[in-house]
Amino acid sequence: MSVQLDYWIRRSPYFAATQQHGCLRYAISNHMYQPSCYDDPVAEYWKLVNGVTLWDVGTERQVEITGPDAFAFVNRLTPRDLTKCPVGHCRYVVITTEDGGIVNDPVLLRLGENHVWLSCSDSDLLLWAKGIAVCAGMDVTIREPDVSPLQVQGPKSPAVIAALFGVEMAEIGYYRLVETALDGVPVVVTRTGWSGETGFEIFLRDGRHGEALWNRVLEAGRPHGIAATGPSDIARVEAGILGYGSDMTVDNNPFEVGLERLVDLDQEADFIGKAALARIAAEGVRRKLVGIALEGGPLPGPFEARWPVTADGGRIGEATVVVYSPRLERSIGTAMVAREASALGTRLAVETPWGEVPATVAERPFIRRRKAGNPSL
Amino acid sequence: MSVQLDYWIRRSPYFAATQQHGCLRYAISNHMYQPSCYDDPVAEYWKLVNGVTLWDVGTERQVEITGPDAFAFVNRLTPRDLTKCPVGHCRYVVITTEDGGIVNDPVLLRLGENHVWLSCSDSDLLLWAKGIAVCAGMDVTIREPDVSPLQVQGPKSPAVIAALFGVEMAEIGYYRLVETALDGVPVVVTRTGWSGETGFEIFLRDGRHGEALWNRVLEAGRPHGIAATGPSDIARVEAGILGYGSDMTVDNNPFEVGLERLVDLDQEADFIGKAALARIAAEGVRRKLVGIALEGGPLPGPFEARWPVTADGGRIGEATVVVYSPRLERSIGTAMVAREASALGTRLAVETPWGEVPATVAERPFIRRRKAGNPSL
Repeated sequence: MSVQLDYWIRRSPYFAATQQHGCLRYAISNHMYQPSCYDDPVAEYWKLVNGVTLWDVGTERQVEITGPDAFAFVNRLTPRDLTKCPVGHCRYVVITTEDGGIVNDPVLLRLGENHVWLSCSDSDLLLWAKGIAVCAGMDVTIREPDVSPLQVQGPKSPAVIAALFGVEMAEIGYYRLVETALDGVPVVVTRTGWSGETGFEIFLRDGRHGEALWNRVLEAGRPHGIAATGPSDIARVEAGILGYGSDMTVDNNPFEVGLERLVDLDQEADFIGKAALARIAAEGVRRKLVGIALEGGPLPGPFEARWPVTADGGRIGEATVVVYSPRLERSIGTAMVAREASALGTRLAVETPWGEVPATVAERPFIRRRKAGNPSL
Repeated sequence: MSVQLDYWIRRSPYFAATQQHGCLRYAISNHMYQPSCYDDPVAEYWKLVNGVTLWDVGTERQVEITGPDAFAFVNRLTPRDLTKCPVGHCRYVVITTEDGGIVNDPVLLRLGENHVWLSCSDSDLLLWAKGIAVCAGMDVTIREPDVSPLQVQGPKSPAVIAALFGVEMAEIGYYRLVETALDGVPVVVTRTGWSGETGFEIFLRDGRHGEALWNRVLEAGRPHGIAATGPSDIARVEAGILGYGSDMTVDNNPFEVGLERLVDLDQEADFIGKAALARIAAEGVRRKLVGIALEGGPLPGPFEARWPVTADGGRIGEATVVVYSPRLERSIGTAMVAREASALGTRLAVETPWGEVPATVAERPFIRRRKAGNPSL
């Protein structure tokens, strides 16, 4: 084991299993270790887009909100109109500040009338939600339950889910959730994930069974060639999926990053940020997150930091991520640029450590989801 | 450069300089890279306790609170009675939830009557504070300003501060702050730090000058043998300084971790968590953080995770950190144990990956601060 570990970073219930499985590198998210890769990231990418992969995403912490006012409270936290989200369904949502800044972009799981999980990206949404509740005068309980998700992603994932939970589970609708058990251990299964491929998440509800669940999924997946991998940055950029911390932070609002579909200004509920977002919707934004397609072959090194982006020689923004797409055979990414430079086809240049690379504002997603699915979920 | 970097982790204004300086490893705190070491950690420890060291602690993000109600708002956030903290002074504080759980343990800098910085450990205190403010009905502005601290720590640090800012600055009192400038660049200097040695922090207020400030401090320190190092876990454990995320989390209250001196239950202000903390103070706690002294020589490997702690064969808690102290020539650490097992001298055992090691509950700090200073600050 060449990975140096820090004692204050939390481990998921799958951690020992990922070490035994040869995880080469861990990222850190929500104060926890997140396996990055067990192999070359391009090899892992092909395993994802052609087969099926298993990811330890225990870093996706759940903020659980229960109590008589839970649903009303959550509807106050997010600009989406949750009256349109029935029990048993999930929604991709943003959580916003009074200024309209994005605190987090969780997947919301509506487990009951007044029982919601917010499955978090990398920021302490628990503290935000608990902070709001202090003076909100609403009857809610907010906590981080013992829940640790795995993702099973790739075109062959339905076969693995069918082997584990039966054929019906493999056919649940996009962004649906089912509460069930595996070998007597309680789990929630959803058809969600951080890739553009067909995929599922298994939310383990009892951390004592992490290793058993990990091994059980690998075993069920063996006939289908399942591989333990990290989440694929390449595949998520191809699919137009955003990354919190790079493509957006609390300094960005949903309109800047192309998530205006998650803002329902016409609803009755007075969610946090409503006035600011209404103003932004009326006035328009000054910068926009766009897809960029770079010219030339693979870059000589990895994407490192926020490379400057120019148009006509003047700096108009910065790249938030750049990857080399093996399927498109070119470098692609996203950039936050001045609105004037955000139209499709605008000619830009990216200042990489290896020189200036010409680029064009390109449509996202770069590669469309192969299976039917409702992108507005 | 063998360090693999992730594009979504933020860099401090000193980051390029730390890379050029040969940083071997970065930790991650507050979504940012934090240099861990440039040399063997024991070598760095000796540089700290015998000389003077420079640390990039840009990960200490400031939560800035201003506005007419700023002081009252901050007094609501923390159990310390801030009416006892004059302008120009700092205080070590805890920020608590309604249950009395510790959200963060920042150093508070009172820059003005209604101008406070909370210099954070590793949790998104900005989100907590902004969340409280949404419904608090108080006139405050909360933001993360462009401020990036460096720590200059070690017995020779006053000489370096004197060379940079004049002799008077080297003699400011413990936990005092001074607003000043260096080469025209605004900074705040404090006599604070994450070691038991004499030390200072320089809070850069304009990130464009990070590299210049880094080089200026190294240059001023050269005659005194200054070395760029990471913060020393060994030295902070010897000094009895707590680490957020290991020695305490939001699941611990100040009474459990020995920070009851930071809770002023008698004050007029109705701070968040007051009722819960009054109840805990009356009822007592069920577990306590204690110092532990291990028998035998150095352990064959580094501290990795939360090693179980037993007494009379029964599990009564877990270690939160264990280091080998070169000055005490033994392994020491802290452990969260059942109250019944928390008395000084209690015989325990620590279940390490290399077998059970006998240990004793020991007084903290293990090594006392050499210079006079008021520990209640």
